[in-house]
Amino acid sequence: MADTPIRFGVLGCAEVSRTLSKKLSRAITLCPNSTLVAVGSSSLDEAKEFAAKSGVPPSAKIYGSYEAVLDDPDVEAVYVPLPPKLHLGWAVLAAKKKKHLLLEKPVALNVAEFDQIVEACEANGVQFMDGTLWMHHPRTSKMKEFLSDTQRFGHVKTVHSIFSVAVNDDFLKNDIRLKPDLDGLGSLGDAGWYCIRSILWACDYELPKTLVALHGSVLNEAGVILDCGSSLQWEDGKTATFHCSYLSNLTTDITIVGTKGTLQVNDFIIPYEEKSASSSVASKTGFMELVVTLDLPQEICMVREFSRLVKSIKECGSEPESKWLSIRRKTQLVMDAVKASIAKGFKPIQLGV
Amino acid sequence: MADTPIRFGVLGCAEVSRTLSKKLSRAITLCPNSTLVAVGSSSLDEAKEFAAKSGVPPSAKIYGSYEAVLDDPDVEAVYVPLPPKLHLGWAVLAAKKKKHLLLEKPVALNVAEFDQIVEACEANGVQFMDGTLWMHHPRTSKMKEFLSDTQRFGHVKTVHSIFSVAVNDDFLKNDIRLKPDLDGLGSLGDAGWYCIRSILWACDYELPKTLVALHGSVLNEAGVILDCGSSLQWEDGKTATFHCSYLSNLTTDITIVGTKGTLQVNDFIIPYEEKSASSSVASKTGFMELVVTLDLPQEICMVREFSRLVKSIKECGSEPESKWLSIRRKTQLVMDAVKASIAKGFKPIQLGV
Repeated sequence: MADTPIRFGVLGCAEVSRTLSKKLSRAITLCPNSTLVAVGSSSLDEAKEFAAKSGVPPSAKIYGSYEAVLDDPDVEAVYVPLPPKLHLGWAVLAAKKKKHLLLEKPVALNVAEFDQIVEACEANGVQFMDGTLWMHHPRTSKMKEFLSDTQRFGHVKTVHSIFSVAVNDDFLKNDIRLKPDLDGLGSLGDAGWYCIRSILWACDYELPKTLVALHGSVLNEAGVILDCGSSLQWEDGKTATFHCSYLSNLTTDITIVGTKGTLQVNDFIIPYEEKSASSSVASKTGFMELVVTLDLPQEICMVREFSRLVKSIKECGSEPESKWLSIRRKTQLVMDAVKASIAKGFKPIQLGV
Repeated sequence: MADTPIRFGVLGCAEVSRTLSKKLSRAITLCPNSTLVAVGSSSLDEAKEFAAKSGVPPSAKIYGSYEAVLDDPDVEAVYVPLPPKLHLGWAVLAAKKKKHLLLEKPVALNVAEFDQIVEACEANGVQFMDGTLWMHHPRTSKMKEFLSDTQRFGHVKTVHSIFSVAVNDDFLKNDIRLKPDLDGLGSLGDAGWYCIRSILWACDYELPKTLVALHGSVLNEAGVILDCGSSLQWEDGKTATFHCSYLSNLTTDITIVGTKGTLQVNDFIIPYEEKSASSSVASKTGFMELVVTLDLPQEICMVREFSRLVKSIKECGSEPESKWLSIRRKTQLVMDAVKASIAKGFKPIQLGV
């Protein structure tokens, strides 16, 4: 039994979620402790086409509806890359059907929606995780070691994170992330998600006390955010800023400055190379590159960790690991506050706890 | 005559300005088109001690007052590293005595003071330059070439600049930059000066339309800024943020994101090495390091350029190069606006011209 892989279903493989479905279907198939047993789309033809083109194992069942995947007793866990507006309904139903839940970001449109997902997961004892790949890269733990070193780094004083990508006109017109009926969070829910998560990660998930959206945000005609930024303040004097955009060249930086050291990474979202990744650290003892090599790309690292948690619930009677719900809820609270600050004409928003 | 070096006097070499006096005295002595002929302090003993310890040429005259340096007909140009509160009086007097003026930053406490210096320089036909070393490093022109390349970089969308340095308790208690009677601008006039200048440089010295200081600034008991930041907005949608601090580990970054490319430097203030310096650029055509080698350290590059301008006035009847006054004035306008925004509880300040 110990070697039995966790059996996954994928919910959604139509065009709008195809890139993600394909990447994660491959990761689930290649990951040593998981296996892909079902894919479902709202159309059977689309599901068949996806399976044929995306290396889905021939043994996997192909369904023409999401319900069918959730009703399949063979499926233990689901990966859900559907448009964010559909997350609430399908995530709650998946949890009720006792399927463990690996949910793409942005997980929900606001914290009230997310709390319904939390409730469903907790009531049904299923594991939750959001699809934030870089959190599972071994470089991330190596960086945290440096940040936790009071001799070399001290404690965090300020963080700056930027994730921008210059999308093309087709994306601006047609991508689901820019349609209020499918997503509504725009670059804030996509690029901004990573920035916010990286700042919270650097600050040990302590919520800021206040935040203010930066003047100069850009919205499309439907009111969806294309470009925005925010400054965040903590009770103890820490500060952070971030900038997320669909309008500037691809840049994925995080700079974390402490009392004694500085950490910098220029490829924190997707490392330039699959097999190794580096970050620069500086402190009074000098500069150095922290280089990490890895056997598996970060998406497989994520599936492996998720499956390990599910296996532990299933085979060892463990409780679901709750930290992913808590981290995810904080990310959402900050995102909601940035949106609120923009809506209020860049007024400061109190977050507290 | 063409090889005659420009004859410099240094105004101020007491303890408060010793590090700067020493560095620039060395640069003036080593620079091929300048020579150090006089140093003056408010005390003759201090001036003598400085000359003996700082490699001032034995031929240089040592004076026990600043007036004496300005009255010496042998002195054509002065370098002034005095505390900022003293700049206005001595800079105006130097200009009236027809001495070309290389003035340390922060050049003035506010734009009204600076305008009096501008007036004196213009009325007396003397060259002005502020002591911002990195502007004269050959890497800076190499970076500007990349930023001006519409194919590889496009145009500027956002800039982030940070200059922090964790000072010790002695500095916090005693440094002139933290005493309102000597400076009053604190880390904004020092580290922030560089950040603001780098942002203006990246934006071809176009002034932002508005600016807001970021919540979370830290002032000492005397009201002098120890740590602050700001976000800036331009008419065309460009944005920038900066953070300057005496409370965080040494970090000197600038990231400039364009529509097609990104430029990053982690040592823009003082390059890690004297003989070579690099910056990273990324665009659709790939990543690369721009590496620049140089014969002379940047402080000598600055003195050389200043002396070249003075020589051109003196020997070719040229007008003083006015761009240094203009660039410097804009830096001051932004600095004044940041101070005003903090004083008004982080309200937006209109700049536009």
